[in-house]
Amino acid sequence: MPFARWKHVVLADELAKSQRSISVAEFFEKNKHLLGFDSPTRGVITTVKEAVDNALDACEEAEVLPDIYVGIKKISGDVFRIIVEDNGPGIVPEQVPFVFGKLLYGSRFHQIKQSRGQQGIGISAAVLYAQLTTGTPTIIISRTGARSPAHRFLLQIHIEDNQPEIISHEEIEWDRTHGTRVQIEFKSNLGAKKRLLEYLRYTAVVNPHARLRVELDDETTTFERVSAEVIACPKAIRPHPHGIEIGQFSRMVAASSDTLENFLVLGFSRVGKKTAGEMCTLAGLNPRIKAEKLTKDEQKRLLDAMQEVSVPAPPASVCLSPIGEDLMIRGLEKEFQMDFVRARTRPSSVFSGHPFMVEAAIGYGGKLPAEGNAQILRFANRVPLMYQQGACAITSCIAGITWKTYGIQQAGLPVGPLLILVHIASTNVPFTSESKDAVASIPEIEKEITLALQELGRELKLYLSRRDKNRLAEDRARAVCAIIPEIAIKVSEIVEMPPPDISPIEGRIMKKLVAKRRVTEGVVTIELNNYTDFKGTVTVYETSHEKAGNISPPPDFVSTLDDEYTRVWQVPVIPGTSWKATYRGNGGGNLDIRGVDEGKLVVVDFNA
Amino acid sequence: MPFARWKHVVLADELAKSQRSISVAEFFEKNKHLLGFDSPTRGVITTVKEAVDNALDACEEAEVLPDIYVGIKKISGDVFRIIVEDNGPGIVPEQVPFVFGKLLYGSRFHQIKQSRGQQGIGISAAVLYAQLTTGTPTIIISRTGARSPAHRFLLQIHIEDNQPEIISHEEIEWDRTHGTRVQIEFKSNLGAKKRLLEYLRYTAVVNPHARLRVELDDETTTFERVSAEVIACPKAIRPHPHGIEIGQFSRMVAASSDTLENFLVLGFSRVGKKTAGEMCTLAGLNPRIKAEKLTKDEQKRLLDAMQEVSVPAPPASVCLSPIGEDLMIRGLEKEFQMDFVRARTRPSSVFSGHPFMVEAAIGYGGKLPAEGNAQILRFANRVPLMYQQGACAITSCIAGITWKTYGIQQAGLPVGPLLILVHIASTNVPFTSESKDAVASIPEIEKEITLALQELGRELKLYLSRRDKNRLAEDRARAVCAIIPEIAIKVSEIVEMPPPDISPIEGRIMKKLVAKRRVTEGVVTIELNNYTDFKGTVTVYETSHEKAGNISPPPDFVSTLDDEYTRVWQVPVIPGTSWKATYRGNGGGNLDIRGVDEGKLVVVDFNA
Repeated sequence: MPFARWKHVVLADELAKSQRSISVAEFFEKNKHLLGFDSPTRGVITTVKEAVDNALDACEEAEVLPDIYVGIKKISGDVFRIIVEDNGPGIVPEQVPFVFGKLLYGSRFHQIKQSRGQQGIGISAAVLYAQLTTGTPTIIISRTGARSPAHRFLLQIHIEDNQPEIISHEEIEWDRTHGTRVQIEFKSNLGAKKRLLEYLRYTAVVNPHARLRVELDDETTTFERVSAEVIACPKAIRPHPHGIEIGQFSRMVAASSDTLENFLVLGFSRVGKKTAGEMCTLAGLNPRIKAEKLTKDEQKRLLDAMQEVSVPAPPASVCLSPIGEDLMIRGLEKEFQMDFVRARTRPSSVFSGHPFMVEAAIGYGGKLPAEGNAQILRFANRVPLMYQQGACAITSCIAGITWKTYGIQQAGLPVGPLLILVHIASTNVPFTSESKDAVASIPEIEKEITLALQELGRELKLYLSRRDKNRLAEDRARAVCAIIPEIAIKVSEIVEMPPPDISPIEGRIMKKLVAKRRVTEGVVTIELNNYTDFKGTVTVYETSHEKAGNISPPPDFVSTLDDEYTRVWQVPVIPGTSWKATYRGNGGGNLDIRGVDEGKLVVVDFNA
Repeated sequence: MPFARWKHVVLADELAKSQRSISVAEFFEKNKHLLGFDSPTRGVITTVKEAVDNALDACEEAEVLPDIYVGIKKISGDVFRIIVEDNGPGIVPEQVPFVFGKLLYGSRFHQIKQSRGQQGIGISAAVLYAQLTTGTPTIIISRTGARSPAHRFLLQIHIEDNQPEIISHEEIEWDRTHGTRVQIEFKSNLGAKKRLLEYLRYTAVVNPHARLRVELDDETTTFERVSAEVIACPKAIRPHPHGIEIGQFSRMVAASSDTLENFLVLGFSRVGKKTAGEMCTLAGLNPRIKAEKLTKDEQKRLLDAMQEVSVPAPPASVCLSPIGEDLMIRGLEKEFQMDFVRARTRPSSVFSGHPFMVEAAIGYGGKLPAEGNAQILRFANRVPLMYQQGACAITSCIAGITWKTYGIQQAGLPVGPLLILVHIASTNVPFTSESKDAVASIPEIEKEITLALQELGRELKLYLSRRDKNRLAEDRARAVCAIIPEIAIKVSEIVEMPPPDISPIEGRIMKKLVAKRRVTEGVVTIELNNYTDFKGTVTVYETSHEKAGNISPPPDFVSTLDDEYTRVWQVPVIPGTSWKATYRGNGGGNLDIRGVDEGKLVVVDFNA
């Protein structure tokens, strides 16, 4: 078939003509959903997220407490203006066009350490999205210190070759001494307003050292910092000998001018002279030859030897920055009202040579919604993950745990007034896509998530069974306190004797510090009886709508909210003693005692 | 704080030093999971998939019937060699290094038409993965026709600048007159062997014109083509005026040397002179001015006008290549045994200016597993999607349908002996990630998927209720055929008359072609009675363990499998006649009749 043959040559030639290189900007312009710009609604969140990530990273590197302003304003029709301003170290003017006007440009890609941004794509993708949807250049102001002027740029990205296009550049006056401000305009809508505020709220939870001020649609919300401690910025580490592949290894070899021994000791984490020697011996290589002289085969042998020699895990404490159990709890308590909250930071671990650490927290009860699935907060390197919950390894780990063991109902995900927070910190968080929405299922990470949640589950179970036991004890106490006096009166009537003092009987049955409140004939009585060996001071809180002007003894402190009064007494208790307060009224509200171990306390409120 | 100020300048300067450009090869080397190389197991499937995609695309462009060889062989330890060879048009030698040795290089990115590969990333990512895990260069052989020699390349990618590195290049003898062969070696395992075969099987289903020969681990499997019709290659179309954004539009304007009218007519799909005129009038622009002279504001006005003027949908029939209902059914029937299968190709539709088409098929019963979730086959542009089913819009659409309406049980996903195939064909399939595993949830696409499945669901419901009715009819027939003769005998005994011929009675009740089999005293009787107006030849299949040497009339054909015998008769039937066969034995096995409409047939097998 000469015709067919001829046709193929022509076709191959024709195809060759249409072959061409695709710039990474063109690629991401066409595939903008890969970067989280799949809808105008989502574009706002993605842009704010990328800008805030950068601001937090920069502040961390400069060791300043982040003070970040986020402004989102409709400027016409469907065009929105987003401003994010920080008090970070600023960016030197020569770099500004590249940082904002070139995809795949940044300082963190080649460093092995935990950071929010890594690829140098995020913020320039927002610039790209702006020029695609509105054609408006992005405005950047940056200043690196009081002695330097501020610089103002109007920027776009030249799509065909992924290079920055500077529309204008001038020095200006700026009231900040250092920091960066970016102003981006694109087509959008505020359909995701609730989710945006959630994102900011969750960011505040895992960045307790940051202050975020948000102006959204002319409403201002401020997320105050919980901690005034500057976060120690993670330090970059060298690659770990167990986490490197031949391709990268060959490049390191080619770039080295050292002896094999020095190449190994200086190039890798956790490799000392002794370990380097072992590796060389195992590979049958002389540690004093130049690394660059290694043949391909010798390189493979050496790499194999490096995998075999045992080496400690990478120094996670240096390159990772976990939130910590205390700050996780404080962050959550600031934003959610819960009866129970515990947190766990797991020891660091490794996958494919990348150190990582899992942290988790569980909250229960309080104002968490009693119905529906547990609320799941997912974080990676202190950044909340807002989309694709179903595709995330964190979610599948949560669903994979048998929550019934811990007293929690389950329908796939656990159900009830439960909040689960999981934070993955790593030098290289494995996301399922460049939009960084979901963590890929890496067995090592999944194991750590599961362990952390199981540990917390056990604590939750303990809390729940103690709470149930307390409820039981309370029910019993309620019965004892209610019935015993009546029995005593009946018995005394029958035997025609005065009613006996029943306190010793109560005490023998209860063995607790019993706090009672009851109303009899328009008098509210609050009573403490200490049948335990506890000695100390407890605080009695009694709340009702009664003004209780005639109260005795008078409380140490009274607070008023709307028309509810909370009376507070500091009451010293020693074993075997009792205390009483009375006032005219009908009670209502509630009674609460603090300052004594829950296990020793029974509160019986006949008047709730 | 002079110290703090000074520190920021230094820090900004320090940070500036570590800022650098990241090559796209570096990016994807570090984030290889984004391209489907997240584990050695998956690497095999991804590589085969990318190479087969390219082969099918190339054959389609050259309009040849694809004949593709896939070889996967362990060559040492954990290193596997993957070979994919096609009979496509080949690649001219000047282009080979770029096609295989540079990410983001290809012929299909800038064309608006349906194709499997689009970004020019896939196969070079496999080359990258090979050099990363084994350091072995990839071998490519390509020939563009009988008059040209074949060329053999050893290639790698230079990571730092994403450029091809030619290790060697020579002209060689090759027995193919045209085609391409790629040989890649990387660390892997065959953990996903089953899934790999599934991928190839599903590829065969939606590419019924392709022949795939697979040598896996020394076992050969061939997927033969079902259709010898060459697929018409989709043609590239121009962008649609409703699917373009200001960024791209400005670039088109800048590149034009035409008048506004010609720019609109020649640059866009579905825009004629009249429509172009309307657009210009609405934007207040003179159609005879040069497009390149437009100011930014005029561009925005024109784009707004283009959105407002109504324009027909893009010409989907040109740029899309649906499989078609008939070929979907034939493809499925070749690979699955089912009692029911229907397919639907929906009319084309548009999202963000990209034409797309949804096709779906539903299979039921047969050898599909009766227990567990329905089997879901997801496809995009004729490529099976093998991972992340849970994150895919196709899955969520399937789960979103109320299957109980169609007589199918459901627990999230539908349950039972059900197979659901969905194929999305588009000039731009919106995947959730660059690994192309899952389709993003785009409302327009989800609507079409749902409509297609609902239409098929209604047909399935009809089939199921007809089947149930047939079962009822069969039960009744069984009763009639069993009881009437006994009643006839009893009655004849009572009235002391010979038993009457009951055929007319059976016929009046049944009005069917009745096939009966029964065993009486060691004789198997097969009987056909035609009480319908059907005239033709039916085929009778009777299977049992009996050798039936004494059978009368002798069957036209007997096949033996293990020790089971299937006897086949061609029986001419005319209305009102009957046919009978008998042999000595005890029966067992089953009776099946083909060649007559199911509604007219009742098979009553007393001997199953």
